[in-house]
Amino acid sequence: MATVVVDVMPKPEILDPQGKAVLGALPRLGFGGVTDVRQGKRFELTFEGEVTDEILAEVAQMAETLLSNPVIEDFEVRVEADAR
Amino acid sequence: MATVVVDVMPKPEILDPQGKAVLGALPRLGFGGVTDVRQGKRFELTFEGEVTDEILAEVAQMAETLLSNPVIEDFEVRVEADAR
Repeated sequence: MATVVVDVMPKPEILDPQGKAVLGALPRLGFGGVTDVRQGKRFELTFEGEVTDEILAEVAQMAETLLSNPVIEDFEVRVEADAR
Repeated sequence: MATVVVDVMPKPEILDPQGKAVLGALPRLGFGGVTDVRQGKRFELTFEGEVTDEILAEVAQMAETLLSNPVIEDFEVRVEADAR
């Protein structure tokens, strides 16, 4: 069993209201030092057997068509070494 | 400038309806081979200067009090080597 992780984050030029809300809440909770927060999504996809290059290419297609909105979001696909 | 990443995922024993929805949609889009999908959140926190152990401990506290719900979610804090 192998786990492939897809990280989906808002593009840098896109406003991120969720991240801004967290950034605004941190000082009110007594946390300092953070200059920016971006919030995105993380998907863990489980596959039977080994992860091949074909599977990674297919996951990139899943990320592009279903998991992310390519107009406003970037994604990154990687194999998780230690699956939880 | 350094980026600290907080990954927040539903605990394994918690039902994850968003992940199940993605899992159900994949075959309809022609994607096979995926046996499970879990959906969580990813936060990127930007700090000025270097990330010390104190900062990482503070981020773990932020994750516990603001970024995650420890009753139903696990989190993981790590320093991002190549900040986007």
